[in-house]
Amino acid sequence: VLKQLRQITVIGLGLLGSSITLAVLHRLKGVKSVGYSHRAITRRKARRLGIAQKVVDDIHKSVEQADVVILATPIRTFEDIFRQIARSLPDGCIVTDVGSTKREPHRWAGRLLPRNVYYVGSHPIAGSEQRGLEFARDDLFDEANCILTKTNGTRPDAIQTLSKFWSALGCKVKVMSPGQHDRILANVSHLPHVTVAALINANVDEELKYAGQGFLDTSRIASGPENIWTDVLLTNSVNINKGIDKMVVELRKLQKAMDSGDEKCLYRLLEKARNRRAALIKNKGKKKGNES
Amino acid sequence: VLKQLRQITVIGLGLLGSSITLAVLHRLKGVKSVGYSHRAITRRKARRLGIAQKVVDDIHKSVEQADVVILATPIRTFEDIFRQIARSLPDGCIVTDVGSTKREPHRWAGRLLPRNVYYVGSHPIAGSEQRGLEFARDDLFDEANCILTKTNGTRPDAIQTLSKFWSALGCKVKVMSPGQHDRILANVSHLPHVTVAALINANVDEELKYAGQGFLDTSRIASGPENIWTDVLLTNSVNINKGIDKMVVELRKLQKAMDSGDEKCLYRLLEKARNRRAALIKNKGKKKGNES
Repeated sequence: VLKQLRQITVIGLGLLGSSITLAVLHRLKGVKSVGYSHRAITRRKARRLGIAQKVVDDIHKSVEQADVVILATPIRTFEDIFRQIARSLPDGCIVTDVGSTKREPHRWAGRLLPRNVYYVGSHPIAGSEQRGLEFARDDLFDEANCILTKTNGTRPDAIQTLSKFWSALGCKVKVMSPGQHDRILANVSHLPHVTVAALINANVDEELKYAGQGFLDTSRIASGPENIWTDVLLTNSVNINKGIDKMVVELRKLQKAMDSGDEKCLYRLLEKARNRRAALIKNKGKKKGNES
Repeated sequence: VLKQLRQITVIGLGLLGSSITLAVLHRLKGVKSVGYSHRAITRRKARRLGIAQKVVDDIHKSVEQADVVILATPIRTFEDIFRQIARSLPDGCIVTDVGSTKREPHRWAGRLLPRNVYYVGSHPIAGSEQRGLEFARDDLFDEANCILTKTNGTRPDAIQTLSKFWSALGCKVKVMSPGQHDRILANVSHLPHVTVAALINANVDEELKYAGQGFLDTSRIASGPENIWTDVLLTNSVNINKGIDKMVVELRKLQKAMDSGDEKCLYRLLEKARNRRAALIKNKGKKKGNES
């Protein structure tokens, strides 16, 4: 049976992890926020900045009393961390993560976590190109979409508890399968990232001096940490590669219209993009902040 | 012989044109700023908002007393406007424009403008995705690069006068050939535009609901006016199409690395993009505002 929420443990104190402990500290009175980092310097900074109620240097002890454990490390560390904490997790504990892909984490959890704990995937679509707990914000999750992922074996009450938790941090929660999550995010988040990286790499430094603010805004996401993103790309490569194929089709359409001087076709393609962005802005209307 | 600057006439009162007349009004005391628009509603708005010293409804009269005439309309209207104003331009007048491509305007000017007036291309790399004189700003050009383009036939004193003019509006002026300009801008400005249009068009509306702030920032430039951009693409298609080919090569590199699970290669490609953007930001350091 799931317990009342008394302690949240966050493993990994980067921008997302530390923003979670900080938000719990400020917004969920009565819930103990515990943070773990494997790096001594990060733990020292976390203590000095007071971003969690308690900062622990033993990963086993950090989870022993937890009702919810949240992994906020690069995706491909999850497998190893599941293995490490499996025996220390208390009965009925909920385990989740904030990774940007979800099929692989579900697979690892199914294989490595004991049957008396409950895994649900979480993806709060928040963050920025910045990294590190120096940028922690207790309002990082305000108005952000948070996708929870479940399979047939996922416990409904674990979904319910996490749904309440993320809502309390300001998120709008949606639930879907890991497969659907990974297909959608490949298109709206991972494909933009590789596209912008390709755009920068297709340019030469000498010419980039003439780039305006448009280029800076367009390329902002490419400043995201390469280790985090390498893990995202490697755990969702099939979907992202389909996205790249679609990108190339669209680029070739524009190229063909330019080649043949097809003014109407060019106009329509640009108009379509502008209209869809206008609809997107209208839909996002009241959103603030820094999500990526 | 070039006269002392007493009157500037801007043809076309969109965001760029009206920001020029406004900046002249506020920053170049003693220089008369005259604006022309072929649309009655735009002229009324321009008069009401006081964005020029004088707003004129006859294009011939608007240029008769001008020392400098600046075209700020979509690029493919230049040919027709050159034809219209050719006989009304005073002796020694400098004609320029603010279009984002430069080879075609030079060609049209060479063919259509009389020998007693002097054409120079101007490209202040400023603006935003917004359109219309409601968004006019007298500081739009602060710290913006402004590229002047010249051929063998261009008069050095016309370059000098325009260089002083744009500097007075806040620009950092560079001079190059129209060919070099069009090659560089294809890569740093036009390619990003078509890339982002392709990225939006490769997505579906239903999924875009899950896009975060990163997608909104990346796609901002796609909200630029499609008529302006159709003209840019049609007058620089060879360079932009080469850029698209380079984009596809870079996308395929990422795709291949994902396909083969080549972690090191992916990491290096993402790291390269992040480092180059960091260098770009450092280089732009003190820039403000809204250029695109």
